[in-house]
Amino acid sequence: DLDIEQIEKGGYEHFMLKEIFEQTSSIHDTIRGRVSPQNKEVFLGGINDVIPKLVNARRILIIGCGTSWHAGMVGEYLFEEFARIPVEVEYASEFRYRNPVIFEDDIVLAISQSGETADTLAAIKLAKEAGATVLGICNVVGSSIPRETDAGVYTHAGPEIGVASTKAFTAQVTVLTMMAMLVGYRKGTLEKEEYHKLIEEFSHLPEKIAKILEKDQDIKELSKRYIESTNALYLGRGFLFPVALEGALKLKEISYIHAEGYPAAEMKHGPIALIDEHMPVFVAATKDKSYEKIVSNIQEVKARKGHVIAIVTEGDTVIADMADYVIEIPETLEALAPLLTVVPFQLISYYIAVLRGCNVDQPRNLAKSVTVE
Amino acid sequence: DLDIEQIEKGGYEHFMLKEIFEQTSSIHDTIRGRVSPQNKEVFLGGINDVIPKLVNARRILIIGCGTSWHAGMVGEYLFEEFARIPVEVEYASEFRYRNPVIFEDDIVLAISQSGETADTLAAIKLAKEAGATVLGICNVVGSSIPRETDAGVYTHAGPEIGVASTKAFTAQVTVLTMMAMLVGYRKGTLEKEEYHKLIEEFSHLPEKIAKILEKDQDIKELSKRYIESTNALYLGRGFLFPVALEGALKLKEISYIHAEGYPAAEMKHGPIALIDEHMPVFVAATKDKSYEKIVSNIQEVKARKGHVIAIVTEGDTVIADMADYVIEIPETLEALAPLLTVVPFQLISYYIAVLRGCNVDQPRNLAKSVTVE
Repeated sequence: DLDIEQIEKGGYEHFMLKEIFEQTSSIHDTIRGRVSPQNKEVFLGGINDVIPKLVNARRILIIGCGTSWHAGMVGEYLFEEFARIPVEVEYASEFRYRNPVIFEDDIVLAISQSGETADTLAAIKLAKEAGATVLGICNVVGSSIPRETDAGVYTHAGPEIGVASTKAFTAQVTVLTMMAMLVGYRKGTLEKEEYHKLIEEFSHLPEKIAKILEKDQDIKELSKRYIESTNALYLGRGFLFPVALEGALKLKEISYIHAEGYPAAEMKHGPIALIDEHMPVFVAATKDKSYEKIVSNIQEVKARKGHVIAIVTEGDTVIADMADYVIEIPETLEALAPLLTVVPFQLISYYIAVLRGCNVDQPRNLAKSVTVE
Repeated sequence: DLDIEQIEKGGYEHFMLKEIFEQTSSIHDTIRGRVSPQNKEVFLGGINDVIPKLVNARRILIIGCGTSWHAGMVGEYLFEEFARIPVEVEYASEFRYRNPVIFEDDIVLAISQSGETADTLAAIKLAKEAGATVLGICNVVGSSIPRETDAGVYTHAGPEIGVASTKAFTAQVTVLTMMAMLVGYRKGTLEKEEYHKLIEEFSHLPEKIAKILEKDQDIKELSKRYIESTNALYLGRGFLFPVALEGALKLKEISYIHAEGYPAAEMKHGPIALIDEHMPVFVAATKDKSYEKIVSNIQEVKARKGHVIAIVTEGDTVIADMADYVIEIPETLEALAPLLTVVPFQLISYYIAVLRGCNVDQPRNLAKSVTVE
């Protein structure tokens, strides 16, 4: 039995590490046949018939739990930016119990790796009763959510065994990006040139992820410094705010270190009081339109003696001079940055947890698929 | 100079404690002339002219930072429940930097105690440029936000000196409740009978808060148990989820304990991994439609040896049997529960911080009014 598990792990010590490394190919699988750099097109067969509804949508409600909720948060930024459709992201558990406002012309988008998440399924039923169009983004083919929804897109990330979701997250974000691009382009709110640039850049993501994964041993070294930490903060802005939330959740889930994600600018409204020399602060700080602002957030943390570990764009010398550690990642388009930035966060969590002796693939108290309410 | 401060503190050791205790009268000041149990009416002069716009609003965007953002989250539940208007609550800092979707028929509601919060002011300017109707809920009369907005409601909580907001929060929630009631009643989505019940109950809130404050010394005793804690979780559902966020923020701000708030049902998607015998878990668990669910969340925490401190409705024996400590508060209507439930959380934070020797009124790294970006 153990031998089979060893074979399934394909030489990796844990499923989680295998799944982090699989992201070079899983993202490729997610976009295969859907993003065509040759024809300069995005095609999503599963939702092709509802594209007109999406183009005319008054609003989109995205529903999920845990990591899927974070993917939904990235989706909010994407749909608002590309398609100018207001998006509300809801915790499935809160949505279903609160007598939510749902209109017949709403699009409800449910995200779940397993397709079996109980709260998300219940939320879908509510949305259907209210007459909304319900779409799904799931990984497990033929699971309950795809059967309950009107249409949807599979993430095709392959089986995810590690309880802490990694490749499923990047696959969910990839699907959301493709959807938002397609809807924005059809609606005319995403310029053709920008649409084509996104399509072109998509095909480079696997190699860019591979380049980040080459830093694996450096990240392992760096992680040693934080194995005694009891707390951590994760900061990001814009598209990278949800990545900060997801980075914190990974650390929390598998290392049992109390990590919390925040939009960087909110720090001064409370969390900055926590910062002292014992507090590692992980910052997603690649070059984008919030760059100057995140630089000053890093200065604020340093002024309070916090320990800053920043994910930066290759060649960034400004943050390198201020932060305690930087992890460089390849340059990409702002809207695609979540797909790269999250990878070092996944590796940091993995190594901190392993070095703390935690059971990474089966963390205490957690189940892979939460089928109870 | 110190003597003047002593006089200003009115016999209390800190402004924060004084302001917590003032909530019996500040809530009264907030509703005075606005909620009339005699005429069974709510009247808000500052927004009277825009009530028709609110009644017909396609959506409401609420914008704030820190505690004001939490008040806005309560507002989301209130407006959706009473007036069936979709509400999106935004961090001002994220909103302003992200090219937000704003329609001319949107109502943007900005919340700020000081009326000077830089990010919120910048967000208001964006909303005005987009042609939206912008309303303000502020405490400081004549401050910048009331001058920049089309209409608004003052909270009339009196000067708040303590950096950690207490009476300003309950005043903000009170204003949001009155607004949502009024709009819902005019729109016909809030039944007359329910509207009158809410009006009647409003007049009992000051005495109910006084009853909670009588437990001051018990709460001080209880707080002694947690002065060595390095972490804490705060849980709530529905209307009380934002109260959990606010409870956690208070502890974070003044005691420097890393506290985090969560919707209780999300716990199983990650944070439950953190729970062990060292983790105090503060739960807002008064009797409402989520009661059975929160009881099972408490059981989950106890099964992982977490330490549960629950705010419960007077006479609750079920949770009293499971939790390590319960703090009973008077029964009220579900939608008004945030106004009572937050008070014990404020006192817990205050006493834990004082007993840890922290400078409660001027916590490290924090400013009362964040006028920088």
